[in-house]
Amino acid sequence: MITRQDCLALDAADPLAPQRNAFALPDGVIYLDGNSLGARPRAALQRAQDVIAAEWGNDLIRSWNTAGWYDLPQRLGTLIAPLIGAAADEVVVTDSTSVNLFKALAASLKMQADAPAHAARRIILTERDNFPSDIYMAEGLIGWLERGYELRLLDSWADLPAALEGDAGAQVAVVMLTHVNYRTGRMLDMKTITAQIHAAGALAIWDLAHSAGAVEVDLNGANADFAVGCTYKFLNGGPGAPAFIWVPQRHHAQFTQPLTGWWAHRQPFAMQPAFAPVAGIKRAMCGTQPVVALALIECGLAVFQDVTMAALRKKSLALSDLFLALLEQECAAHPLELITPRNHADRGSQVSVTHPHGYAVMQALIARGVIGDYREPQVMRFGFTPLYTGYDDVWQAVMVLKDILDRSDYQVDAKRTAVT
Amino acid sequence: MITRQDCLALDAADPLAPQRNAFALPDGVIYLDGNSLGARPRAALQRAQDVIAAEWGNDLIRSWNTAGWYDLPQRLGTLIAPLIGAAADEVVVTDSTSVNLFKALAASLKMQADAPAHAARRIILTERDNFPSDIYMAEGLIGWLERGYELRLLDSWADLPAALEGDAGAQVAVVMLTHVNYRTGRMLDMKTITAQIHAAGALAIWDLAHSAGAVEVDLNGANADFAVGCTYKFLNGGPGAPAFIWVPQRHHAQFTQPLTGWWAHRQPFAMQPAFAPVAGIKRAMCGTQPVVALALIECGLAVFQDVTMAALRKKSLALSDLFLALLEQECAAHPLELITPRNHADRGSQVSVTHPHGYAVMQALIARGVIGDYREPQVMRFGFTPLYTGYDDVWQAVMVLKDILDRSDYQVDAKRTAVT
Repeated sequence: MITRQDCLALDAADPLAPQRNAFALPDGVIYLDGNSLGARPRAALQRAQDVIAAEWGNDLIRSWNTAGWYDLPQRLGTLIAPLIGAAADEVVVTDSTSVNLFKALAASLKMQADAPAHAARRIILTERDNFPSDIYMAEGLIGWLERGYELRLLDSWADLPAALEGDAGAQVAVVMLTHVNYRTGRMLDMKTITAQIHAAGALAIWDLAHSAGAVEVDLNGANADFAVGCTYKFLNGGPGAPAFIWVPQRHHAQFTQPLTGWWAHRQPFAMQPAFAPVAGIKRAMCGTQPVVALALIECGLAVFQDVTMAALRKKSLALSDLFLALLEQECAAHPLELITPRNHADRGSQVSVTHPHGYAVMQALIARGVIGDYREPQVMRFGFTPLYTGYDDVWQAVMVLKDILDRSDYQVDAKRTAVT
Repeated sequence: MITRQDCLALDAADPLAPQRNAFALPDGVIYLDGNSLGARPRAALQRAQDVIAAEWGNDLIRSWNTAGWYDLPQRLGTLIAPLIGAAADEVVVTDSTSVNLFKALAASLKMQADAPAHAARRIILTERDNFPSDIYMAEGLIGWLERGYELRLLDSWADLPAALEGDAGAQVAVVMLTHVNYRTGRMLDMKTITAQIHAAGALAIWDLAHSAGAVEVDLNGANADFAVGCTYKFLNGGPGAPAFIWVPQRHHAQFTQPLTGWWAHRQPFAMQPAFAPVAGIKRAMCGTQPVVALALIECGLAVFQDVTMAALRKKSLALSDLFLALLEQECAAHPLELITPRNHADRGSQVSVTHPHGYAVMQALIARGVIGDYREPQVMRFGFTPLYTGYDDVWQAVMVLKDILDRSDYQVDAKRTAVT
């Protein structure tokens, strides 16, 4: 039997507890949606004032040089790199995750097309339960290529080894997977799967939207080919903040993508009428980026300087373990179904449970200050962000959930809003 | 003989003079670079605080609904629309100008390929002096299409009518032009040129980066096909703020582009594993956008609610006329060469002059608080932004320039920085 005292004792002994002070969280709220929008670092407000009043307002155009605006995409990349097992010059922050996936996918297809042994490969593999925008971007890209690529959706990532075998496997050009599934919170074994993909002669693209800053990631250790990810979830970079793209050094020279804007040019200010790609990671860029939004990302990343991903991961699992145990202890009478793996190696930093009235129950939770979110169909998501979530938060969240379920205190006809 | 008293009198009689109070400009600076980075609206600081502290910090994920984050790209579009002769539902703010040009160009090629009478057209026409990133994006796109498109660079826009004639003209699929040239400040006759392009069976894409908020634009009056533009120059939206794309209602149904992210989906939160485009302008979107940067754009656009583009244009021309007259009066002894048209109909909202030591002279100007900028080769650009630039500013700028030139007070070996 777990008691509230147990949870309070865990908080008192938590070496990461002081990190919560780096964030401005409202009173009366238990925020379990950092997997969708990370909380606001306290430093972000002052940083915005500095960028807007001093850099933009006073220094104006000169700030491209004097305030380092021009280097921000790469500077942020160097801060993200150690969180994902990348070298400092392999990451850049730019554009959206979807646009970056488009670049990585296009680059992969081009690399395969240019390799005589692989030039005939025409299949892009992913799983049906991948984040939909990733699927849409692949559809969008291959719809414009005339060589007849096919996007094949696996019913489950577990079908991947079979799909990579034999004649069918020899047709696969690239496999794109999301490391931690947005809906279920299931984590894939990046290293093993990447090796399977490479053994079949295909390239591996990983979407780290729900991994970066949430779980330990080792892109170079896994020998992955390309990765993209999000800064506004577990990296706490601000709503809709630009995304990142990772290109390993071994692919820099071959990396080409169709969005060849001036920021990817060798001499952007020489104003030459022909494109010539810059060396290195900047060739993954395209156009000018939103400086104020970029600057705020730096506040989110700064918090990670004081912690290790190993420590964060340890606490994240302890939080989600506690949540699972309390669900069983307190809510066993209700039709909640766990869709997140119990096995640590297979679990990201969120727990998802279904309920026949999942949307209505989540709205009731939010109304009482326990903020998770909902995803079709029937899925309630609870994200555990060890930088600012404590064990007693988990206790309280489950108690509110129990009360709502015990009293059926939710509106089953709740009107759906666009985003929850 | 123009005197300073004349300039002060013009300021005193200027109906737009009060608008300067809407902007926070540093003391001791004459800012003539709003064509590169617009000045900071005073309201932007408070707005950033509200978005960061209240909307992000306190309301967290709920702000996608409660603070209208989800609708920002379209809401900003409705504010830009009247400035460019567009209907309210034809503009959306998203991504960068380069990425939006890619979408417009891809959509144009697809529309032509789908039209039996035009399907064989394979030429994209632009001018060599177009903004380089536009050229690079066209290169990037057609490099990935296998139907053998050709990007043809005209030595001058004046060669366009000839290039649209006869057999060669019948091969032109699309013409992409920038309305006001970034380097020279030359403005094209959008209506006449669009009619020429249409008469040849081609589509017309306009880049409004140096037009929107600077000159009167009537996209629908010109019957243009697509347009893209920038919010961080004359619209004062903040450094690197997201760009806009215009798709006229008559093309909405046929508009398809390869960057089919979830924000362009009919039901983005239904999480379906197949793309289905939304109706209307949102199909020009792709991924999630940087909310803080978007919110600041609204502050820049708010200032335009109190003025008319006709009044702004009148003052803009009066300012650049004054600058030209004072250059002749005060600096005639120096090797300055005007590369901006004198004719009002051909002039945007900047004046560009070359000088053999243009870079060094511009650095000297900036060091003395007169901020213009430099573009290769030898070009000094002076932007006139009637919302916050006065006639006496022009007087003082020319006096400083005269003094620098008279005394050769510039460093010809000045080290070049990345961006000026």
